[in-house]
Amino acid sequence: MRQVKITYMPQKVEQWVVSGTTIQEAAVAAGVEVEALCGGRGTCGKCLVRCSGVPTEPSPAEQEKIRPELLASGWRLACRTVVAEDMVVEIPDQGAGQLIKGNLSVATGVLAGSGEGQSALVKIHLKTSPSSLEDPRADWDRVQALLPQSQSQVDLKILRELPVLVRQNADLTAVLYRGEILALEAGDTTAKAYGCAVDIGTTTVVVSLHDLRTGEVLSVTSAFNPQRAYGGDVLARIDFSLHGQNLEKLQDLIVEAVNVLIEQASAQAGIDTKSIYLVSVVGNTTMQHLFLGLSPRHIAVPPFVGVLYAGLDFAARDLGLRIHDGGRVTLLPHVAGYVGADIVAGVLATGLYREERPTLLIDVGTNAEIVLAANGTLYACSAAAGPAFEGANISCGMRAGTGAVDRVWLEADDLHYSVIGSSEPQGICGSGLIDVVGELLQAGVIDGTGRLLSREEAKPLVGLTLAGRLYEGENGEEFLLADRGPLHKVRLTQGDIRQVQLAKAAILAGVHILTKEMGIRTEDIQRIHLAGSFGNVLNRRNARMTGLIPPGVDLEKVKYAGNSAHIGAQMNLMRAETGELAREVVKRIKYIELSDRTDFTEEFTEAMMFEEGGLFG
Amino acid sequence: MRQVKITYMPQKVEQWVVSGTTIQEAAVAAGVEVEALCGGRGTCGKCLVRCSGVPTEPSPAEQEKIRPELLASGWRLACRTVVAEDMVVEIPDQGAGQLIKGNLSVATGVLAGSGEGQSALVKIHLKTSPSSLEDPRADWDRVQALLPQSQSQVDLKILRELPVLVRQNADLTAVLYRGEILALEAGDTTAKAYGCAVDIGTTTVVVSLHDLRTGEVLSVTSAFNPQRAYGGDVLARIDFSLHGQNLEKLQDLIVEAVNVLIEQASAQAGIDTKSIYLVSVVGNTTMQHLFLGLSPRHIAVPPFVGVLYAGLDFAARDLGLRIHDGGRVTLLPHVAGYVGADIVAGVLATGLYREERPTLLIDVGTNAEIVLAANGTLYACSAAAGPAFEGANISCGMRAGTGAVDRVWLEADDLHYSVIGSSEPQGICGSGLIDVVGELLQAGVIDGTGRLLSREEAKPLVGLTLAGRLYEGENGEEFLLADRGPLHKVRLTQGDIRQVQLAKAAILAGVHILTKEMGIRTEDIQRIHLAGSFGNVLNRRNARMTGLIPPGVDLEKVKYAGNSAHIGAQMNLMRAETGELAREVVKRIKYIELSDRTDFTEEFTEAMMFEEGGLFG
Repeated sequence: MRQVKITYMPQKVEQWVVSGTTIQEAAVAAGVEVEALCGGRGTCGKCLVRCSGVPTEPSPAEQEKIRPELLASGWRLACRTVVAEDMVVEIPDQGAGQLIKGNLSVATGVLAGSGEGQSALVKIHLKTSPSSLEDPRADWDRVQALLPQSQSQVDLKILRELPVLVRQNADLTAVLYRGEILALEAGDTTAKAYGCAVDIGTTTVVVSLHDLRTGEVLSVTSAFNPQRAYGGDVLARIDFSLHGQNLEKLQDLIVEAVNVLIEQASAQAGIDTKSIYLVSVVGNTTMQHLFLGLSPRHIAVPPFVGVLYAGLDFAARDLGLRIHDGGRVTLLPHVAGYVGADIVAGVLATGLYREERPTLLIDVGTNAEIVLAANGTLYACSAAAGPAFEGANISCGMRAGTGAVDRVWLEADDLHYSVIGSSEPQGICGSGLIDVVGELLQAGVIDGTGRLLSREEAKPLVGLTLAGRLYEGENGEEFLLADRGPLHKVRLTQGDIRQVQLAKAAILAGVHILTKEMGIRTEDIQRIHLAGSFGNVLNRRNARMTGLIPPGVDLEKVKYAGNSAHIGAQMNLMRAETGELAREVVKRIKYIELSDRTDFTEEFTEAMMFEEGGLFG
Repeated sequence: MRQVKITYMPQKVEQWVVSGTTIQEAAVAAGVEVEALCGGRGTCGKCLVRCSGVPTEPSPAEQEKIRPELLASGWRLACRTVVAEDMVVEIPDQGAGQLIKGNLSVATGVLAGSGEGQSALVKIHLKTSPSSLEDPRADWDRVQALLPQSQSQVDLKILRELPVLVRQNADLTAVLYRGEILALEAGDTTAKAYGCAVDIGTTTVVVSLHDLRTGEVLSVTSAFNPQRAYGGDVLARIDFSLHGQNLEKLQDLIVEAVNVLIEQASAQAGIDTKSIYLVSVVGNTTMQHLFLGLSPRHIAVPPFVGVLYAGLDFAARDLGLRIHDGGRVTLLPHVAGYVGADIVAGVLATGLYREERPTLLIDVGTNAEIVLAANGTLYACSAAAGPAFEGANISCGMRAGTGAVDRVWLEADDLHYSVIGSSEPQGICGSGLIDVVGELLQAGVIDGTGRLLSREEAKPLVGLTLAGRLYEGENGEEFLLADRGPLHKVRLTQGDIRQVQLAKAAILAGVHILTKEMGIRTEDIQRIHLAGSFGNVLNRRNARMTGLIPPGVDLEKVKYAGNSAHIGAQMNLMRAETGELAREVVKRIKYIELSDRTDFTEEFTEAMMFEEGGLFG
């Protein structure tokens, strides 16, 4: 194994991966979206990419799906092509705004270029003239005259360094944020203006480093949120924050994590953290509260009210971020205690706010946030889906990392699976869970009520190979997905299926209540943006089988929004008008508190049932 | 001796003085202007005031000047009336804007009341409603909705304290500075909003504490500028600031002095320094630079350019001021290195900027700053008058304090004098110096060239009593003003007179150059505002005799502007529009650099001569 470089075009994203990785796997990790309806099984033929460099010989699946002349000019299926040498991967246009969204999303193509606005952080090159008896203006007044906007407050540090600075340099560079001066630098430093987009997830923190002039992403780093040690979900963190100095502790942990990720990203890109002037942060309501050191106490109890929903700017040094001393932090607004800036970012990233036809955004996490938009009106709710799709409360559940079964498919009368990192299977992550439940539903091994059939019941339906995986466990029927030694037994229990049912029922009930509010049926929904930690690996058909996608919605209407929160953070970093747009959007989002709805239980109960499968039946 | 209280009306200024003080002396100390053309000798009859309480029996001078029915209803001469009991002193209206200006000026009457604008610092009482499922806005968003202006940056401290604050108090008070929130307080605290106007002089620092709602002055404190130990004048301080950590040292000294004065003023008024939210600071260009920790280095050398002339706002905590933690400091702009914010404050305080007829402001200090205004155009210059009028470079010179001869007059063929604090004479201060030179000029003892006559030459002119005070000293002729023992010999030397000539020549040359620029003659000047440390004690006739007032200007046209710098600081504290007005005014002030003028030496030489006297001749 060795490191090889993939360059994605037109995004210009560069990535180092271990040779032997498929393009599909690599693209997911790089946050580059590659269409893949079948979940990477080589059956849908949608993940067409064009490889230059030395592509591998086409696989049988590729020979079947791709015309010979295209194969000859380098077109391959991303899910079937293994990267052996440095390679340029060209990804065909899949529609405006949908080009580059993924797990670690990189919005270069979306944000850079003409007409797409400018960051609120700009550098201006100033040419100063020396003072004289004819022009005896003070040093600052001379600089002020060259600025586009009158300053009423200026950092004393800037003024104190000014006399030496202006006498040693005729060329200066002013760093302005929304017209306010943050710094004054010697020479023309306009070429060095960097910013970070930070997505603070409950579980994962992602930082991308951008050239603020072009939007180009220079590097991406991520790490687990170190607050995890004090609670896996938002409610546990809030509870922990209530005691002693714990709020400060949680804040210190996340700020330090962001600092380290910024430092790593800077080191990778070979830039100085002191030339980072702007950090755009997005997280759910609780994560942003903890990042700012604001108590999330009242988010946990009715009426679920936080301290700050408006998107404000802060001085980076007040928050302890080690970027430029005058640097700023900008935040997007929240809608409610459980519909946070991450969802607002998703609404911005997917363009949901400007949809005229009914469009849905579902962001699946511990809470599934759902936004339904049409004609400029948006309804949002948060459904307590539980952490099943994040790998928690599932007997063999785990997060999407090395050793996780991330895809499962039925082939030749048996289930097959892929494992992240191509290692031995250790557990099953969200996408794998949806796949196995979806495939077993289709096969009829799980019935419409969610009951797992016994081996005897299943044998006539699906044959012995598949039915042989069923056995009586300690707490009812179980399905053995993988058995690669005592440490590598991965199974699905009746209890796991109930968790999936609870989750999907919560999401579907939420969707139904929003459609009711809007006076439409789920069939009227023209597009669904599916966001969350699944990345692009989620199989849409199985997502619908398990009820993650409402019944009656054409699969072609489902789009992966990837990490739309991170894309929204990038928009707020790179486009000065994003904050204002977000304020307008938040005003138009009507928040529906589900716990306040008398019809929720009814909808929830109804949504518990699965759509019946019957691939074999 | 005991303390008695004087209340000045309509200014409502209260003052405690030692019984036996004259109203005139007390009024000077309180900063309340009482007209006194004769310098307090009971001869002009201009200092009419009406005393209630128990006025003393009228003196012969009062019986001569005041009609019996007025005497009966309490009218007295302020310079002849001694305060024995608590007293209310009513001061007749002397024209708009001129009512209350003096040494420690108190601008209550000018600033308070209707139509006079409002401080940029305002408090707003907010009534919040509790959050509910129907109104689940965040704590901050609930507060923001009640504010007149959207906030893009809010102090984290405010946000961190918010959850407890809003849940314990339905009534809140927002502290806003130019619409920006500085603090949020429990309950309705609108009655407690205080601010300070600070005049940082090279020698003296004055702080007044005001109720920001009404402008009412609550207390006034003053102290010597502790930087004096490192240089008596601006140039000496600049020189000292150039080495090592001296700039920081000078800044620390003045900031601490202001802190102590604010604390004293607060203690006197019985208020908490934490309820002071705004400090308006005025000083000359160098003093403001040192207060901000900005190097004044380049003010000392051509082209005499400072770091900052624009009037900016700063966070009080960044400057180390111990007021409310979110408090602000506001500064007025400078015109040039030697025409500072103190002069701009003077232009605002005297209304010079709106004068249509030629009007002059002369602020006499080590440098005399001169502003000539007409038809909205203003010319300003700074003349190196030297420190003669501040008591320096004069053989028996001293500052206006206890033991200083402050007034001198010719009566019954001899010179008489008064001493500050009614103690033994130890030296002579500015006003005394002007008096003695003026009186001797009028008597012919000093001739038009400034030569002090010998005893023999003077005897035929003025008689033996006065001529007997002349004698041959070590360096030429001397005039013995007081001889009350070896430590109390106060004399005027030929050298002292030369210093006065140099000073007045510099001022007059400056005035001439400004009138030339404007194309008028000095006789066209309709009003002269005389500002400086003289207070109201200066004798205008002698001021003209010594050349401090240009020849040909009617004495009635001379007004004492008192400490106009401090009044301007109060205006900037109490009227939000002052900063903008000052910016406009500064734009209209054309600065004339005298060192750059080829005609200055000629004007200076011509102005060395005195106007010939001849009271006896």
